Amino acid sequence: MPHPGFEHAIEHSFTVQIYYEDTDFSGVVYHANFIKYFERAREQVIGAGFLKQLWQNQGIGFAVYRCDMVCNEGVEFADLVSVRSKVVIESKYRTLWQQEIWRDGGTRPAVSGYIEMVCLNQARQLTPMPTVLMDNLGA
Amino acid sequence: MPHPGFEHAIEHSFTVQIYYEDTDFSGVVYHANFIKYFERAREQVIGAGFLKQLWQNQGIGFAVYRCDMVCNEGVEFADLVSVRSKVVIESKYRTLWQQEIWRDGGTRPAVSGYIEMVCLNQARQLTPMPTVLMDNLGA
Amino acid sequence: MPHPGFEHAIEHSFTVQIYYEDTDFSGVVYHANFIKYFERAREQVIGAGFLKQLWQNQGIGFAVYRCDMVCNEGVEFADLVSVRSKVVIESKYRTLWQQEIWRDGGTRPAVSGYIEMVCLNQARQLTPMPTVLMDNLGA
Amino acid sequence: MPHPGFEHAIEHSFTVQIYYEDTDFSGVVYHANFIKYFERAREQVIGAGFLKQLWQNQGIGFAVYRCDMVCNEGVEFADLVSVRSKVVIESKYRTLWQQEIWRDGGTRPAVSGYIEMVCLNQARQLTPMPTVLMDNLGA
Repeated sequence: MPHPGFEHAIEHSFTVQIYYEDTDFSGVVYHANFIKYFERAREQVIGAGFLKQLWQNQGIGFAVYRCDMVCNEGVEFADLVSVRSKVVIESKYRTLWQQEIWRDGGTRPAVSGYIEMVCLNQARQLTPMPTVLMDNLGA
Repeated sequence: MPHPGFEHAIEHSFTVQIYYEDTDFSGVVYHANFIKYFERAREQVIGAGFLKQLWQNQGIGFAVYRCDMVCNEGVEFADLVSVRSKVVIESKYRTLWQQEIWRDGGTRPAVSGYIEMVCLNQARQLTPMPTVLMDNLGA
Repeated sequence: MPHPGFEHAIEHSFTVQIYYEDTDFSGVVYHANFIKYFERAREQVIGAGFLKQLWQNQGIGFAVYRCDMVCNEGVEFADLVSVRSKVVIESKYRTLWQQEIWRDGGTRPAVSGYIEMVCLNQARQLTPMPTVLMDNLGA
Repeated sequence: MPHPGFEHAIEHSFTVQIYYEDTDFSGVVYHANFIKYFERAREQVIGAGFLKQLWQNQGIGFAVYRCDMVCNEGVEFADLVSVRSKVVIESKYRTLWQQEIWRDGGTRPAVSGYIEMVCLNQARQLTPMPTVLMDNLGA
């Protein structure tokens, strides 16, 4: 997946506590949960309240089009991990996110990913992002 | 919680395979997942297709009002458990479900619960169940 | 379920942000997730790091024996809810938790529950809680 | 991600029923759940009982190293989807899976992905797959 322009993007940081529910019997975090942490971090960057209003008032939402994740290291129960996110605007319909999960004292991300989001209306057709959001994300 | 009339209710059986995602690092199924298996079993009894149409065409759905669960025994990865469900109609607004999770060769349920469901409209107000559903569940 | 002595118990408060992952297509939080928020809040009271060490060093953990939950009100995407928890020690093997989920500005809990926890060894046999934990929880 | 040799691989099919728990308030399946369905399908191909024994008797398990997923279409509550899986053995440490999720009557996969799995011991070090598994998957 291409990753243009992330060198100029602001890094947002978001903390996730790892609970019982996050692990599986192998003793580490179940891999699909990393995708959830990425999503939580994106919601924090955009604002959950903003997302709710956008959906209720304008019928606009965001969906994952592509998600490419690499898991380098297991993450354990009781870990407090940092999700680091950068975003670039690909078009008025698309954003690309570079996201990483770091454990305390790690020398590389435990997990890293590129997530491409599309902006959809309630009929799930591509629709332009609100200008205010593009301005905020691009800033 | 009272449990009237279950002696006359039909028992429905539903099989659940336990996957990695269901367990936590203690090695057994994470307790909140039992609540999900109960829900899946109820959806099978009522019919997922029926539930979807009811929501889309009449704006009617079901919500858990109360859930009382006892966990007697751990359930393990790779188990194939049987969810046994009985339902009684408490009123045109409410159903009460007696549900149990059995492991292969078990002498008692690994988990048992009573779940009280209410019928709601999309404004989340109590609304009567469709007659056809009451007839089906009561049969 | 009996609920002795909660009037003297300290109330612990824990905040949960409601994300996309928490909701279902009916528009509100999927009911089994409330059980997860209760668990997260208990882990915070006891300490996730303490729980991890207890498991790794002494082979001691905690399991839900009984969970009785009442859902009064739907909880929505983007809500920031408060989980309020009180605990009493029933015996050296058992704790009982009174837990509630409050929405902003609510006049009653959206969800309330009693959760009975047992202390188990890795063979899932009842085992006494560490004294230090009993002291902490009872304080 | 490269995808060599899938043209000679057997296609395994696995059915998933979409429940309430799978959806979010946007009305379709929450994207991280597709990753779970891929995992369930892989467990069925390899055999959950075999995976359990391998872990308990030899301390060997499998972890997702990389997951690259494209979501073309929303999947809805009550859908009965087909997960189609092909696997190639990359080395004695690695398998690559091509997996797709098809809705009834679909003309292309709703979701498709490549998942690279590694074989690990309980210290999470690369370890060779059991020969019997390589034989089975390669057949």
